[in-house]
Amino acid sequence: MSLPARVPSNSADDELHPYTRILSPRENLLGGEPVGKFGVPHLRQFFEHIGRFPSPLLTATETHSLGRSFIPDDETVLVDIVTRWGEPSPSREYMRSGPREFLAFHPQTVRAAIVTCGGLCPGINTVVKEIYQSLRNIYGVKEVHGVQMGYRGFYTAELDTILLNDVYLKGIQHRGGSVLGTTRGGFDLGLIVDSIASRGFNQVYIIGGDGTHRGAYKIFEECIRRRLMVSVVGIPKTIDNDIAIIDHSFGFVTAVQEAQRAIRAAYVEATSGYNGIGLVRLMGRNSGYISMMATLAAGDVDVCLIPEIDFDLDGPHGLLVHIENLLRHKKYCVIVIAEGAGLQYTQNAQEEKKEVDASGNIKMQNVGLWLAERINSWFSLRGIEVNLKFLDPTYEIRSVPAVATDNIMCTLLAQSAVHGAMAGFTGFTCGTVNTHHVMIPMKEIISRGRNRVDLSSRMWHRVLAATMQPPLKNK
Amino acid sequence: MSLPARVPSNSADDELHPYTRILSPRENLLGGEPVGKFGVPHLRQFFEHIGRFPSPLLTATETHSLGRSFIPDDETVLVDIVTRWGEPSPSREYMRSGPREFLAFHPQTVRAAIVTCGGLCPGINTVVKEIYQSLRNIYGVKEVHGVQMGYRGFYTAELDTILLNDVYLKGIQHRGGSVLGTTRGGFDLGLIVDSIASRGFNQVYIIGGDGTHRGAYKIFEECIRRRLMVSVVGIPKTIDNDIAIIDHSFGFVTAVQEAQRAIRAAYVEATSGYNGIGLVRLMGRNSGYISMMATLAAGDVDVCLIPEIDFDLDGPHGLLVHIENLLRHKKYCVIVIAEGAGLQYTQNAQEEKKEVDASGNIKMQNVGLWLAERINSWFSLRGIEVNLKFLDPTYEIRSVPAVATDNIMCTLLAQSAVHGAMAGFTGFTCGTVNTHHVMIPMKEIISRGRNRVDLSSRMWHRVLAATMQPPLKNK
Amino acid sequence: MSLPARVPSNSADDELHPYTRILSPRENLLGGEPVGKFGVPHLRQFFEHIGRFPSPLLTATETHSLGRSFIPDDETVLVDIVTRWGEPSPSREYMRSGPREFLAFHPQTVRAAIVTCGGLCPGINTVVKEIYQSLRNIYGVKEVHGVQMGYRGFYTAELDTILLNDVYLKGIQHRGGSVLGTTRGGFDLGLIVDSIASRGFNQVYIIGGDGTHRGAYKIFEECIRRRLMVSVVGIPKTIDNDIAIIDHSFGFVTAVQEAQRAIRAAYVEATSGYNGIGLVRLMGRNSGYISMMATLAAGDVDVCLIPEIDFDLDGPHGLLVHIENLLRHKKYCVIVIAEGAGLQYTQNAQEEKKEVDASGNIKMQNVGLWLAERINSWFSLRGIEVNLKFLDPTYEIRSVPAVATDNIMCTLLAQSAVHGAMAGFTGFTCGTVNTHHVMIPMKEIISRGRNRVDLSSRMWHRVLAATMQPPLKNK
Amino acid sequence: MSLPARVPSNSADDELHPYTRILSPRENLLGGEPVGKFGVPHLRQFFEHIGRFPSPLLTATETHSLGRSFIPDDETVLVDIVTRWGEPSPSREYMRSGPREFLAFHPQTVRAAIVTCGGLCPGINTVVKEIYQSLRNIYGVKEVHGVQMGYRGFYTAELDTILLNDVYLKGIQHRGGSVLGTTRGGFDLGLIVDSIASRGFNQVYIIGGDGTHRGAYKIFEECIRRRLMVSVVGIPKTIDNDIAIIDHSFGFVTAVQEAQRAIRAAYVEATSGYNGIGLVRLMGRNSGYISMMATLAAGDVDVCLIPEIDFDLDGPHGLLVHIENLLRHKKYCVIVIAEGAGLQYTQNAQEEKKEVDASGNIKMQNVGLWLAERINSWFSLRGIEVNLKFLDPTYEIRSVPAVATDNIMCTLLAQSAVHGAMAGFTGFTCGTVNTHHVMIPMKEIISRGRNRVDLSSRMWHRVLAATMQPPLKNK
Repeated sequence: MSLPARVPSNSADDELHPYTRILSPRENLLGGEPVGKFGVPHLRQFFEHIGRFPSPLLTATETHSLGRSFIPDDETVLVDIVTRWGEPSPSREYMRSGPREFLAFHPQTVRAAIVTCGGLCPGINTVVKEIYQSLRNIYGVKEVHGVQMGYRGFYTAELDTILLNDVYLKGIQHRGGSVLGTTRGGFDLGLIVDSIASRGFNQVYIIGGDGTHRGAYKIFEECIRRRLMVSVVGIPKTIDNDIAIIDHSFGFVTAVQEAQRAIRAAYVEATSGYNGIGLVRLMGRNSGYISMMATLAAGDVDVCLIPEIDFDLDGPHGLLVHIENLLRHKKYCVIVIAEGAGLQYTQNAQEEKKEVDASGNIKMQNVGLWLAERINSWFSLRGIEVNLKFLDPTYEIRSVPAVATDNIMCTLLAQSAVHGAMAGFTGFTCGTVNTHHVMIPMKEIISRGRNRVDLSSRMWHRVLAATMQPPLKNK
Repeated sequence: MSLPARVPSNSADDELHPYTRILSPRENLLGGEPVGKFGVPHLRQFFEHIGRFPSPLLTATETHSLGRSFIPDDETVLVDIVTRWGEPSPSREYMRSGPREFLAFHPQTVRAAIVTCGGLCPGINTVVKEIYQSLRNIYGVKEVHGVQMGYRGFYTAELDTILLNDVYLKGIQHRGGSVLGTTRGGFDLGLIVDSIASRGFNQVYIIGGDGTHRGAYKIFEECIRRRLMVSVVGIPKTIDNDIAIIDHSFGFVTAVQEAQRAIRAAYVEATSGYNGIGLVRLMGRNSGYISMMATLAAGDVDVCLIPEIDFDLDGPHGLLVHIENLLRHKKYCVIVIAEGAGLQYTQNAQEEKKEVDASGNIKMQNVGLWLAERINSWFSLRGIEVNLKFLDPTYEIRSVPAVATDNIMCTLLAQSAVHGAMAGFTGFTCGTVNTHHVMIPMKEIISRGRNRVDLSSRMWHRVLAATMQPPLKNK
Repeated sequence: MSLPARVPSNSADDELHPYTRILSPRENLLGGEPVGKFGVPHLRQFFEHIGRFPSPLLTATETHSLGRSFIPDDETVLVDIVTRWGEPSPSREYMRSGPREFLAFHPQTVRAAIVTCGGLCPGINTVVKEIYQSLRNIYGVKEVHGVQMGYRGFYTAELDTILLNDVYLKGIQHRGGSVLGTTRGGFDLGLIVDSIASRGFNQVYIIGGDGTHRGAYKIFEECIRRRLMVSVVGIPKTIDNDIAIIDHSFGFVTAVQEAQRAIRAAYVEATSGYNGIGLVRLMGRNSGYISMMATLAAGDVDVCLIPEIDFDLDGPHGLLVHIENLLRHKKYCVIVIAEGAGLQYTQNAQEEKKEVDASGNIKMQNVGLWLAERINSWFSLRGIEVNLKFLDPTYEIRSVPAVATDNIMCTLLAQSAVHGAMAGFTGFTCGTVNTHHVMIPMKEIISRGRNRVDLSSRMWHRVLAATMQPPLKNK
Repeated sequence: MSLPARVPSNSADDELHPYTRILSPRENLLGGEPVGKFGVPHLRQFFEHIGRFPSPLLTATETHSLGRSFIPDDETVLVDIVTRWGEPSPSREYMRSGPREFLAFHPQTVRAAIVTCGGLCPGINTVVKEIYQSLRNIYGVKEVHGVQMGYRGFYTAELDTILLNDVYLKGIQHRGGSVLGTTRGGFDLGLIVDSIASRGFNQVYIIGGDGTHRGAYKIFEECIRRRLMVSVVGIPKTIDNDIAIIDHSFGFVTAVQEAQRAIRAAYVEATSGYNGIGLVRLMGRNSGYISMMATLAAGDVDVCLIPEIDFDLDGPHGLLVHIENLLRHKKYCVIVIAEGAGLQYTQNAQEEKKEVDASGNIKMQNVGLWLAERINSWFSLRGIEVNLKFLDPTYEIRSVPAVATDNIMCTLLAQSAVHGAMAGFTGFTCGTVNTHHVMIPMKEIISRGRNRVDLSSRMWHRVLAATMQPPLKNK
């Protein structure tokens, strides 16, 4: 949950706190003020005649107290804030987002488009609504268009864009899914930028994950190449929380919350049956964040398997023997497995196929079904009756409305996106770093690769402490 | 939601990120390594013969991968991380919490006590359970006692302490309330420390708010004075989120989530009735955090009134005229008011009484009932029919089980508390700063005063943008 | 939950069941087939030239299997079905509702109006939607109008009627409240029937409680008097479940479910505090059904006070002594009180005032606040510390979406209402009797008076067995 | 929801209601008062020296108002209450349950056992707790034993019975699952009755479904054969609601409620995707009740497939073409399928296998997976992109705590079971008929066969009206 920044207080506090580090001015690595400050591109880098309009917040009467809170362009947020006493240490920093005093777009000339891509994630509707509302209520923008069904909506005849209005968006922040519709794939750079040009969009808000962002960056580059003065902004959407740099992505908290229901069901089934085994598959193709956090939150899980760990199935220290030990001592066990865990086992079976989905991801065998089969056959061979129940709550998790925390995060991300675009920034992505909202160069997001659970982190060790699970490796 | 720390990565990343500030070593303000590093007292400052036992994590076989993750005492977390380009800036820092390689207590000799004080808050049971589990499962401590009904439980004959065990604590992380019981007041320093001494407790975990922490600090001092080698640890509990320094306190996310239910009801009542007004009173005696965040999350609130703002009721720019305008344009309105808002109005009526509750807080007139009455009589005088519904969900919010996010936070706070106490730290409080878990000198927590919403912060401005509410002041 | 009628099976079953009573044909009390069969008025009683159109169900192709399931007019449902062996016994009976083979209205000529009156109740939106959908999808009616804000919406200029359509009603069955708006009072017979005449409505669906039904019956009579061929149909709405004859009214199951949340909160507060007392006020001005059923469902309640019982507060067998006994033995207690309980105590304080609300109900002092004050002052006088928490979840209960069971009931009531009106019946109310849907003469509903808990019934005795509460009377 | 019986009122009411049928005394089909009244066996039929002890309710002081409400043995409830005017009609009737004035067991001599068999169903814990509480609180029985893990718990060494007490059962009515554990199979008549005899149980409460009841009846017979004076009582548990005679079984309402979550998820996924198809598999091997009622409650379902209907997949009027039509007109569709639907398709694939589970049920291919595959390949062949999401919420539904309505039903069933057993009845099953609680001869329950949806019933026609689905048959 992102709470209000505590602005560095300057007087009495200091006396209370003698342990104070002085942060020196940063070394100017590039020999001068960076072009496109802190790596966030700005339209003025690419176009000569760029507007400079005073923000309507300066003169707003009804909400005039907003007027004093502009964020200067050279305000940044530090990333690497765990340090050692007595040692210098480097820290990356990102540009703080928020309203700017001057805008690159006159609100009357803005034609904005919003598109949602990829799979469902709780909170999409809130992002859509708040982009619309921020544009309209804060800046007075008149035209905000919704692109239907992801990237293909830019150019598919039957999927016309929707001119958004209050009635259409009423109450959608309390509903799951995406009112605009969302699909994987459909990225066609030429057709999309043709559509942007012909429809006259000059702000494009793209909500999606890793693959979507790669597309968004190409759209940004192509707009520049074609001399289209368009702000292209990304809002990272990944229920798996596998986008680098940011604290976590929207919908993640909701997913962890909703996963509790399935873990609870697995626990009840396991404890009510004879040698009951509750097995829950959770989302996470490359990263085990949901499984890790859901395990910590539940407090009832005995084994947590994530893509980042390598575990043996057989052998004296393997998973199956560990399950047998749990059944002997506790009479039941609860297992959480991320969809991408145990890939070395599941991919063998289908190596040749290499089917891919519309986003280009390799289709996986369902690791939960695979593990269920392996457990059942192993105990069957040993003549031990077990009662295994397998639960896969994926679609129930993805489609719920966002919890309050996520709704707030979505609201704030959307506001950040709009403030940035109105000010003329482009090719950036919104996110929080150490609880503060920042603009991150889109290029950096996509070149970082996926975020993965650090097995030497405190958080993973807390999971091991909570589950008491052994290394599950034979040597 | 506290996510895993992203440890500063050192090689390839740097090339991606040219905007890097070098943090210089801190200036040694005290002329030498601080006694009780970073202000966190350690038993070795006060006692000569202090133990130094290797942590059982060093040799654990079952969970041996935990062994490599000790936190050194000079690792800190920076606080003031919003900075300006080209300027030096000071930042407070706090000691990072986590397991230490050497312990001041041999686990076999630990007799721990846990006490919960003050009002209910979602997550208390999770903290209690995880302190017990961390002591037992990670460190092998045998005796953990629960003190009943708050401070009074130390010395009240009928309230004997409970020797905690697995059966007693089973599943309590999914239940609201406090299994130990909790009350306000009852602080008697002499009797409490007598009890600690006579029962042989050497670790005391105290879960409570501002007032409770003031007591805890006195217990810490008195234990030192009496030469009792006791670690006294605080875990901050305040559903209002009004404790300074930390990101937010446990239970707060749950409270914001649960408040949505009442706001939703108010919205439904308001929109279903003729000139409907939904009025919700939320917790927050001194600070409007719950009201602020619940308003942002709901997206349906027209007016948010918190203790930090000063509003006029009457007059052309006052609240009542604003409500009338809302009714004219929207046909309904939804108002959220924190219990401590409008104090200038409610305290007049009862100035002489000055009743205080057991914690010493001044009893307030219910501002919700007061405002409901004022609204009704004002519209009645003007001959306008309105249908006002007043909701006060306080006890329903306080008593629910914690949401997943809060359960994780409670788990981590408890682990931090136990790691710190086992290492010999004392007189400290656990909390998160910029998402990282730290130990904060208890003295600093209590001398800071209550945390309040900063009216010039981005977060409050986001509320103003969401509600579109005017300043509500006549000049 | 109304389940499908098990049609009397006729062959093999009989052999299984030798205990079979032969129901003799009813005695013709009126000397011939009753006019307006079974008391349900039909338009043909009042108008000579009444249509007789074959139901579209007869010829529907898409859903043609519906065609075989018409209900004959002389099919009835028995009421008094608990009987004694060997004794004759009388049973009332009601006309079974359902589709008729012939209609009095040609669907193309129908102009229907729907109005919702009184307080909120879960399920209103489902009734509205399903009346619309049944008229449109089953019968092909084109015009269904929504009257806004209750009776006043018929004649208030600013509240024009809404022509209902699919988009307007989309998803409303999952939302609380009333999309049409609902208010108390506003009944003006002349203006309402003027409006019906001038707008050309010939079917009027009125959703409301006791008072609303009295108005509906007058509308029915006045339409007949003015020679307006209008079907007037009532759907009983009372969250208190105090309407006679029917099994229970819609929304009641949801209310009992939602009340669990408040009782749970009261229980958690009571068990977590020192001498904790959780006090919950539930709806029920005249009848204690919600309190009774919510108590049975919770299984955690110690005292249940309803309007139907007479209890002493003071004295050796009064409530206060009983609470003290509970605190002594259990250390806490949970009390549920219906809003109309203890009227003899609360009305004294305000006898002169006799304020009434817009529906003409006498405004009551809040019995929960009164009881809380009495308990607190009694224990204060006796020097016993208690911690009482008072919860009033009324508006949170009323405004939630209906649970599945209630949504089904609402769907079925709406279908029954439409089938009846299309067939030409009027002046009737829909409801279930012994799980079967019937049409009840509106006159009988309003002359019955309010339904109240029978203190000699098995259900109340089950509550006494569950709470173990004594009679609470001194002699 | 079972509401209090409205006792036939006798005076003023009659004047209001002229449509009254006189029920003649039943014809004595057996020539004299039936042995074991109304087919319910009584211990006195089989044993000469049977006790006759006054009920403690007669003399209870604390709850003395209970004393007046005994149910006489010849009070019955009519079943077939939908009748035609002017025609005689037969009606089965069942013996009303409730407390009797005289008991066959002296409470001090009762040793009761409770066993739960088969799969999970919401409410089991409430039944267990209330049997215990009714025996102890109402009758003063001292020994109530829990048999672990179903029938096998009677004779398996490692599964000793549990002597139930208040602490063990505290709060279990709010938890899913079975605290006693439950398994399928394990029925061994000889060993079970040996165990009953050797442990001295004289009341055995058996909670289970169709198969379990067949076993229970054998236990009843064997006890009589061995001259063991034991009351054997069944409480029907079937989440599918497929037990004949009774209105519905406990847990069914909860299952319908919980199924809404999955249908909602399917709807959100379907409406958010391109040509989205949401497919939900619900419980129901032989009967489609859950699917039918869940469809009615949701209001968002386009196709409901249950075991009772026969549908074509291919062909111009088959399911696949219907789905294509829906996608063309609505752009999405939502399908609910019961696990036993389409058996003609799924059983071909595995005809030879004929695997059975521990209860002897034939293992089925998962019809949901089968249908998903068929839909996907059909549209794939036709070159139409669809996005199908398949949800199987079975275990999440089974394991939740019961909703309020079901908790009440469980409480009442348990009370009925205890009243019946204490009075000396045996070989019977508890249930509600037309909302009234009755005792049904166990033999009749098991000889009836499974309850199935009547395709000519009003309820199924309501589903057809709600979904607008065609017959799905080619001719």
